[in-house]
Amino acid sequence: MDSILLLAPVGSIIALLFAWYLIKTVMKEPEGTPEMSKISLAVRTGASAYLRRQYTGVGLFFAVMFVILLILALMGYLTLFVPFAFITGGFFSGLSGFIGMKVATSANARTANACRQGLNKGLRIAFNSGAVMGLVVVGLGLLDISFWFYFLSWFYTNVQSVVDEAQKYQLITSAMLTFGMGASSMALFARVGGGIFTKAADVGADLVGKVEAGIPEDDPRNPAVIADNVGDNVGDVAGMGADLYESYVGSIISSSALAVAAGLGLKGIIVPMTMAAIGVLSSIIGTFFVRSGEEASQSVLLRALRKGTYGTSIIIAILSFFIVWYSLGMEHIGVYFAILCGLVAGNLIGLTTEYYTSDTYKPTKDLAGTATTGAATIIIGGLSLGMLSTAIPVLIVGVAIIFSYFVSGGAGNPSEGLYGIGISAVGMLSTLGITLATDAYGPIADNAGGIAEMAGLPEEVRQRTDALDSLGNTTAATGKGFAIGSAALTALALIAAYTDEIGNIAEKTGSIFVLDTSITNPIVLVGLFVGGMLPFVFSSFTMSAVGRAAQGIVMEVRRQFRDIKGLMEGTAEPDYATCVDICTKSAQKEMILPALVAILAPILVGVILGVNGVVGMLAGALVSGFVMAIMMSNAGGAWDNAKKHIEAGNLGGKGSDNHKAAVVGDTVGDPFKDTSGPSINILIKLLSMVSIVFASFVLNYSIFK
Amino acid sequence: MDSILLLAPVGSIIALLFAWYLIKTVMKEPEGTPEMSKISLAVRTGASAYLRRQYTGVGLFFAVMFVILLILALMGYLTLFVPFAFITGGFFSGLSGFIGMKVATSANARTANACRQGLNKGLRIAFNSGAVMGLVVVGLGLLDISFWFYFLSWFYTNVQSVVDEAQKYQLITSAMLTFGMGASSMALFARVGGGIFTKAADVGADLVGKVEAGIPEDDPRNPAVIADNVGDNVGDVAGMGADLYESYVGSIISSSALAVAAGLGLKGIIVPMTMAAIGVLSSIIGTFFVRSGEEASQSVLLRALRKGTYGTSIIIAILSFFIVWYSLGMEHIGVYFAILCGLVAGNLIGLTTEYYTSDTYKPTKDLAGTATTGAATIIIGGLSLGMLSTAIPVLIVGVAIIFSYFVSGGAGNPSEGLYGIGISAVGMLSTLGITLATDAYGPIADNAGGIAEMAGLPEEVRQRTDALDSLGNTTAATGKGFAIGSAALTALALIAAYTDEIGNIAEKTGSIFVLDTSITNPIVLVGLFVGGMLPFVFSSFTMSAVGRAAQGIVMEVRRQFRDIKGLMEGTAEPDYATCVDICTKSAQKEMILPALVAILAPILVGVILGVNGVVGMLAGALVSGFVMAIMMSNAGGAWDNAKKHIEAGNLGGKGSDNHKAAVVGDTVGDPFKDTSGPSINILIKLLSMVSIVFASFVLNYSIFK
Repeated sequence: MDSILLLAPVGSIIALLFAWYLIKTVMKEPEGTPEMSKISLAVRTGASAYLRRQYTGVGLFFAVMFVILLILALMGYLTLFVPFAFITGGFFSGLSGFIGMKVATSANARTANACRQGLNKGLRIAFNSGAVMGLVVVGLGLLDISFWFYFLSWFYTNVQSVVDEAQKYQLITSAMLTFGMGASSMALFARVGGGIFTKAADVGADLVGKVEAGIPEDDPRNPAVIADNVGDNVGDVAGMGADLYESYVGSIISSSALAVAAGLGLKGIIVPMTMAAIGVLSSIIGTFFVRSGEEASQSVLLRALRKGTYGTSIIIAILSFFIVWYSLGMEHIGVYFAILCGLVAGNLIGLTTEYYTSDTYKPTKDLAGTATTGAATIIIGGLSLGMLSTAIPVLIVGVAIIFSYFVSGGAGNPSEGLYGIGISAVGMLSTLGITLATDAYGPIADNAGGIAEMAGLPEEVRQRTDALDSLGNTTAATGKGFAIGSAALTALALIAAYTDEIGNIAEKTGSIFVLDTSITNPIVLVGLFVGGMLPFVFSSFTMSAVGRAAQGIVMEVRRQFRDIKGLMEGTAEPDYATCVDICTKSAQKEMILPALVAILAPILVGVILGVNGVVGMLAGALVSGFVMAIMMSNAGGAWDNAKKHIEAGNLGGKGSDNHKAAVVGDTVGDPFKDTSGPSINILIKLLSMVSIVFASFVLNYSIFK
Repeated sequence: MDSILLLAPVGSIIALLFAWYLIKTVMKEPEGTPEMSKISLAVRTGASAYLRRQYTGVGLFFAVMFVILLILALMGYLTLFVPFAFITGGFFSGLSGFIGMKVATSANARTANACRQGLNKGLRIAFNSGAVMGLVVVGLGLLDISFWFYFLSWFYTNVQSVVDEAQKYQLITSAMLTFGMGASSMALFARVGGGIFTKAADVGADLVGKVEAGIPEDDPRNPAVIADNVGDNVGDVAGMGADLYESYVGSIISSSALAVAAGLGLKGIIVPMTMAAIGVLSSIIGTFFVRSGEEASQSVLLRALRKGTYGTSIIIAILSFFIVWYSLGMEHIGVYFAILCGLVAGNLIGLTTEYYTSDTYKPTKDLAGTATTGAATIIIGGLSLGMLSTAIPVLIVGVAIIFSYFVSGGAGNPSEGLYGIGISAVGMLSTLGITLATDAYGPIADNAGGIAEMAGLPEEVRQRTDALDSLGNTTAATGKGFAIGSAALTALALIAAYTDEIGNIAEKTGSIFVLDTSITNPIVLVGLFVGGMLPFVFSSFTMSAVGRAAQGIVMEVRRQFRDIKGLMEGTAEPDYATCVDICTKSAQKEMILPALVAILAPILVGVILGVNGVVGMLAGALVSGFVMAIMMSNAGGAWDNAKKHIEAGNLGGKGSDNHKAAVVGDTVGDPFKDTSGPSINILIKLLSMVSIVFASFVLNYSIFK
């Protein structure tokens, strides 16, 4: 085996060591006043309690799935590694979310405290904690992949020797594909559960606290305020980490499988794995670019963050040329351009998101203006903005698909073209270490602001945390662009990997079926319809779950205001833990139905319509899910910033009728952008993953062949 | 030629004669007080002014398109009949909308006047006027089709003799396909323009009249009240008529083309054409079932209407058996079951729509309950309801597609299966004469209510018109089910016809291209993405158009309240005409952009991605458009009825905070259900029509082949 592949495990270990070093640096900082420590502890305790409960529930699911997969393996529908690979995928994904959350909840008070000294100090702590999340995700992802790759290579060389190289790598990559399902399942639970938790707490706290009781945001008298802060961590940190973990892993394993299908063998596998390693190392270098002078303005800070991400992109763009050259040679140098294409596309989608959702640009400013005729018009305006904002990302992804396909030789060999699409997803995600850092630091700053408010720190501290937070909103837009764009390309690569996989299985088992995925095949069309509908039904479930959970919080907060004497006067403490507990319980309960949809749909469609129907379903869900995810994220983001635009003193400012209308928009946008929208990214990949794992079963038992 | 085909022209003439008879009956009735005549005249004048202006603008468009098509024809890309067929399609579609609108605006005062005597009398007039619309649509549609069929048969027999029968019918049906584009373009303008007009007037009148000035709905002091009533006629009557005209025509001509592709020749063409004729005659019989005793309760009236539609369905179900038996013989009797399948599917989708949008069922009742926590939660609830409501219609259409395909012999000969899908759309639309009647009478009753209010008729008259109106909402739900379901099946048949058409053209011209519409072809996938995005962008345009147009009305109404002395006191008359004029102008201006999207997208995608990309785009738009249209229609309908549920005295009733929240929902729902949602139905068919007309051009000039 080529020794350059060692870059993968080595890179992953360096990432984890550097993350450990960053944790040490962050933990060295003081937490500030005893009051601040106490609040931070309450948030940490709540978040841990939530994750413990979530992992218990999810553990049960994994146990059941493990048994099902084991039975399928014993019946010969899967290799025996699959159930175990499924478990490790879920475990590492959960672990990266857990570590990210731990660090984030330890960093919040420290960031607030650092902001007492200055903006740059605060930025360093928040950003370093975010970087831990980024590095842990890529480090553990790469570790999991490396482990299985080396283990399976050893197994198929020494235990069950497969002489034919092509066949050996086919066996390896096809087993590895399945652990993506573990990561995807975990991601779904983390995103949906975390998304429900955070928005139920947020909406519930606002509806009673801000609207009914008339106390400010993050006021310690609000019984839901700790739950709200916990939500930021379990939703925006742990949830997002698990989400991108699975995108990252999915893009690498699907391109590896496509490499084998394209006949590139080990050389083709080397590219995604070493690309990922290079991305990790470049991201570490990139983190050093992120610094600025004390008391720098916001635009200077933004430039510092941008320097980090763009710097990383440039380093990757240079190094990956040598990787492609070394492993595939000059005749496949087109693959390098697919990587560049992914890198550029990710950044462009991010810029589009920023354009549509930031109040420095026309769309969101205009949206704020629609508040002058009331809540109905700002809702219509936001939906309309979200729908319009789908056009450019679709065109960018369209160009990326065609470009990566043809530049990688798809005209001569379609499999090589599909490999190129997979590789462009890897290229897009190679900067994940640093983009996730610039994304995950936002909720930390948000939490720090909450702590500053609750601990009664001077106004200037809150101003600094707000500056960091609002900066985080801008960089989060870029992060969302990467999450959505990479989800589309990865899902596409997974669909291609699925059709290959079916061919392999059919060949091995002698199953008779006709692969006809043309659109004029009515089975494919019905699959398309069902797939196109799934993101709508899924979003319906997640949105109404937030509504129901928020309702529970509203009841509890009203009860506490009524029953606890002296609460409003500040002489008695609210019972924070009960609100955290209610959110936890509802999130657990409410995430079951959407998860079932995602896991059962491919199996049911497969059993009824067969593999052609499944391909149709996957394509339908990919297309409508991609568009819906962008629409919901951008509409939500724009409503949020339109409200902030008014709060900044425009159009009558806080408390005006315009502001009230904008708050309605923001509340509708909350589940859009933080629950339903991002969950769709996972849905479209999980559908493919489940389809791949159950491919053999479906081939045997489907009604239509 | 088989003489049974004569049924088509004969049926169409009977329908038109019967419509003429109904017009006479309606016009014999008195208009009531001079005040009522005056108001009715104002509405009629406004509607005529709008249609005149619309037809002028659309005429210009048709003139330009005619020249373009003529040039293409002279260059050899189209036969010379196409430009003329395009014109007649548009002309007859516009004419049916015009007649329907004329009758509706003459019937409103007469219905109000009849309601002074009793509910049944009012129902008869409103229903008969609605029936005129239904019969004119099917009559003119069938006339147009018959004319071209007989003319082209004569031409290819006597002028340019084509000996080979199969080739002759291929020439005929392929020329006929193109006049669908005329009908579709007209429908798009009518739906989008009418939809913008009606909702701009509605929203504008409510925002100033109800909310700011605090005067009741339909108050004569509101300057936008006439525009609002005009809107009902140009949007819900003329717009819907043109919409269903093109669905009806589209389903017949696409099945005829598919009949030829399936090798069934004339026998296969006979089925859709005579089915349509039978539908016309059965619908006429069905109208006689619609009567009830004087002062019957609402449920008795509903049963009367249902008797009409179900009775018609049963007659068609029986007669169509003989048609299939006679023309195709027992070996193709499966086609009969495809017809039945279409009939049943249409009714089932209608029932689903009713379930999700009527406040007698749980979903809308629950939605009304979400108003208790404010506007944001009822918006989230409505969107969630709309999204969830897509599941069952998708499954119904899915089952209908597979069933019709296989029962018609698709397993042996795919072309026969696709023909079966087309025929099931014809089956679904065969009851159009009567379903459109039960649908179109709603806005007439709505207008009658407005006139009763403005003319100060006794309260009981208004109660009766309200009863008719609310009954109309229920039957409109069924009508919408047919519109959406048939649009999906027709669009599907058109896509199949498109792929056939390409084959024919390529064969004739010797163009070299590879038809590969498999989903793993990246060109197809990119087409899918672009298509999936189109309904979103299109809806964004139509929704924001309503917002902008409503804004214009708000300004004008505010101006009149300010400038016209004595208006609020009722001593001075408002200037109704200016509001009508503003709506007219904005509707004309705002319909250009969405129309351009629908017409240019297939040409651009075709030129860049080639025919495979076009097929992908059509499928993507079909799937995401179908789901979006259901989502928007049902969410809008549910918000509307949730508001009515509260107004009926539940949850605090009119004027309560809950009611205010529900009004926000209803206002968001207005463009959803009456502008954007229904327009998508046309979009997905127009895209196919344009693709078919430009197929030859695209085959020659596309970048990707």
